[in-house]
Amino acid sequence: MASSSSWLDIDEASEFSLANLPFGIVSRAGCWEEPRPAIALGTYVVSLRDLAERNGFAECPDAIPHLAVFTAGSLNNMAAIGRPFSQTLRTYIRDLLVTDTPYPHLLRDNHELRSSAIQPRKECQMHMPMEIGDYTDFYVGLNHAYNVGVLFRGPQNALQPNYTHLPVGYHGRASTVRISGAPVRRPRGQILPMPGATEPIFAASRKLDVELELAAFVCRTNGTDGRPIPIAEAEQYIFGFVLMNDWSARDIQAFEYVPLGPFNSKNFCTTISPWVVTVDALEPFRCDSRIDAARTQKLLPYLDERRATGRRSFYDIRLEMVLTPAQQGNSGLRKAHVVTNTNAANLLFSFPQMLAHHSVGGCEMRVGDLLGSGTISGPDTGSMGSLLEITENGKTPLTLGEGISRCFLEDGDEVNIKGVAGQLGAYVGFGDCSGIILAANNE
Amino acid sequence: MASSSSWLDIDEASEFSLANLPFGIVSRAGCWEEPRPAIALGTYVVSLRDLAERNGFAECPDAIPHLAVFTAGSLNNMAAIGRPFSQTLRTYIRDLLVTDTPYPHLLRDNHELRSSAIQPRKECQMHMPMEIGDYTDFYVGLNHAYNVGVLFRGPQNALQPNYTHLPVGYHGRASTVRISGAPVRRPRGQILPMPGATEPIFAASRKLDVELELAAFVCRTNGTDGRPIPIAEAEQYIFGFVLMNDWSARDIQAFEYVPLGPFNSKNFCTTISPWVVTVDALEPFRCDSRIDAARTQKLLPYLDERRATGRRSFYDIRLEMVLTPAQQGNSGLRKAHVVTNTNAANLLFSFPQMLAHHSVGGCEMRVGDLLGSGTISGPDTGSMGSLLEITENGKTPLTLGEGISRCFLEDGDEVNIKGVAGQLGAYVGFGDCSGIILAANNE
Repeated sequence: MASSSSWLDIDEASEFSLANLPFGIVSRAGCWEEPRPAIALGTYVVSLRDLAERNGFAECPDAIPHLAVFTAGSLNNMAAIGRPFSQTLRTYIRDLLVTDTPYPHLLRDNHELRSSAIQPRKECQMHMPMEIGDYTDFYVGLNHAYNVGVLFRGPQNALQPNYTHLPVGYHGRASTVRISGAPVRRPRGQILPMPGATEPIFAASRKLDVELELAAFVCRTNGTDGRPIPIAEAEQYIFGFVLMNDWSARDIQAFEYVPLGPFNSKNFCTTISPWVVTVDALEPFRCDSRIDAARTQKLLPYLDERRATGRRSFYDIRLEMVLTPAQQGNSGLRKAHVVTNTNAANLLFSFPQMLAHHSVGGCEMRVGDLLGSGTISGPDTGSMGSLLEITENGKTPLTLGEGISRCFLEDGDEVNIKGVAGQLGAYVGFGDCSGIILAANNE
Repeated sequence: MASSSSWLDIDEASEFSLANLPFGIVSRAGCWEEPRPAIALGTYVVSLRDLAERNGFAECPDAIPHLAVFTAGSLNNMAAIGRPFSQTLRTYIRDLLVTDTPYPHLLRDNHELRSSAIQPRKECQMHMPMEIGDYTDFYVGLNHAYNVGVLFRGPQNALQPNYTHLPVGYHGRASTVRISGAPVRRPRGQILPMPGATEPIFAASRKLDVELELAAFVCRTNGTDGRPIPIAEAEQYIFGFVLMNDWSARDIQAFEYVPLGPFNSKNFCTTISPWVVTVDALEPFRCDSRIDAARTQKLLPYLDERRATGRRSFYDIRLEMVLTPAQQGNSGLRKAHVVTNTNAANLLFSFPQMLAHHSVGGCEMRVGDLLGSGTISGPDTGSMGSLLEITENGKTPLTLGEGISRCFLEDGDEVNIKGVAGQLGAYVGFGDCSGIILAANNE
């Protein structure tokens, strides 16, 4: 991968640089009616299906037996071939797209194929990248868990006894995972109308919140007999990453969650960014966890990644949450506010550790399973991944300038989560992970 | 449906009487290589695919446009046509099978079709009846929730404040739902080695338990926008019922479940019976809940089924749990013990209420979703649906005669759940829901 420029015109500020090349599923009215696998580069989308149908993989012998996966409406079959294949594929596509491509005749100088296989990204519609089998959401953002624990139980008992021993998680709802742009209907449910009340009312949530997360798609199964995934192998089960917003209705959650965990407070919608950023693209950004090591107990061997691999498997990804309130300011414009700046390394356990734990008791993992990190918060003000923390459960409103403030989300508010690693000219970003709040249904 | 006998020889004690006719997915080596939809009658299985391929639906005009659903490897597409179709289909198949069938030429007197479409059930292999989208497990067996609450929090706080207001439930793991007969590997996980310990060990579960449940398969979607399902319509979303054993590792559960609910303690295996007993077959056994009405709060309108429909939507299904310990008794034989006798009407909320609650906040339900009731216990000794209750969390061993006793399950133990409604000659039963415990994996 010598060349760092493409014969396509790529802005050096693009989060979809040649260093990224994430996979997604796209369609475009009038030319790509059926959703198909593609990669993003700058303001363009390159269709793998169209490459496959017009000899574009001629110099990629590994791809020849697998061309059928590029006509599918999800990335599952492609991802299932395995990490080495995704790696080869991504390198080959980069080779097609760099200025001094070794295969100029295949794409760069093939104007017929260029015009069919490459489209402007803004004209394309995105689709769910994977068919999700099961969706699991972990809770390994220690700062978030601590902040929430302090709010509800005080600093002495903020973290539960199990918290530092294992990646706490729960099974989420796969049917309502949506890609960026899908609107989010405010849920209604059973809510205690005031502190101390014992009779719930049925009402629209008044505490609709966000949860800033990173999530991984699984590309390999451990089999129907649920072979525990050894920590040293776990990374080979990860296809890539997306951003996630696990929208949460805090008032519904408060009443329902004992003793079996969140249910209707979460299952109305979970938003993900549509491009899957590969583990390979994030390779240069490996780092240690930013959680103070003193907070980590001695781990049981099945979770001891450091001993097993020596690898650092957290990522230095800068994350931000952008809130655009429904109201116009004095200027007459809706204005976006960055309300959170944090980093994906603020996690207590890595994704390989989550996978090792998830499967240790015999749980079958399948291609397309989605694992969320849980809310990612930094250690200080301005780095918190939920309004619950930012506003101390609504006690301290967040000022958004010009007389606009928020305790929780209002109808018409839009939230976007952004994530980027790397430097100008070689950014590795995720695209948008946004949703706008619609008013609750009427009775 | 006048005739109550079939030209097939059906034992009057069979749980698969003409009054039942449940749907399942079967294969048979040498003749039905590909799994296919079928119904069970007595000791026979009737393949819908083979009927469809050889003119068997000639007198069922409603089925003609839908014959393709009978070649599928799951019941999803068939169920998705809707409850009226399943009803028509079941009536028609009964018409083909009764002694005085109106269409003798189609099957009874068509020896070629009889020999291809009808096989002995014991020669057939069962498969998962539906492709499960999401699996949700509720907790609406009030006696169970109360018994467990007493064990852990005492009688004053046995039920949480939300318990009588809404059907408490959690998202389960769809990937490890298995049909009867699949062995159950004892899970390993993090366990506190003794009361009061703070450091978990990694070990095979010592408290492997059963949960006797009834479960429903969903046959209709409320759409990607998650339209709340009105309580009056909810029953139309239910295709039919199976028995379920939600195997649970109580020691893993005790350490992991705060605050997000059970995870590895449940996700290693959930067993269901393979035949889906239709809502129509259970129609004669509708009844009221057996839970003391005084324990039910005034319900919010979206859950008030009685007001909305006047229907009684619990079922008088006799349930039993049979434990066959690994050890031989003095006789040299392994002996089965009925350890629980209970009834499916021991639920606080009905399945339509569960669906109305599940969707009220905007959760999309999909065809093939599976909803478990939670453990069903009666009010007294001998009617409890888990060993946790029967042995008071291991304090009072269950004697199984001849010097054999159990606190929790041991390797080689087999548990079967049975369920039957109705009377001799017209039993409506579920078949087996069994699993045998395999030793935990080695390190």
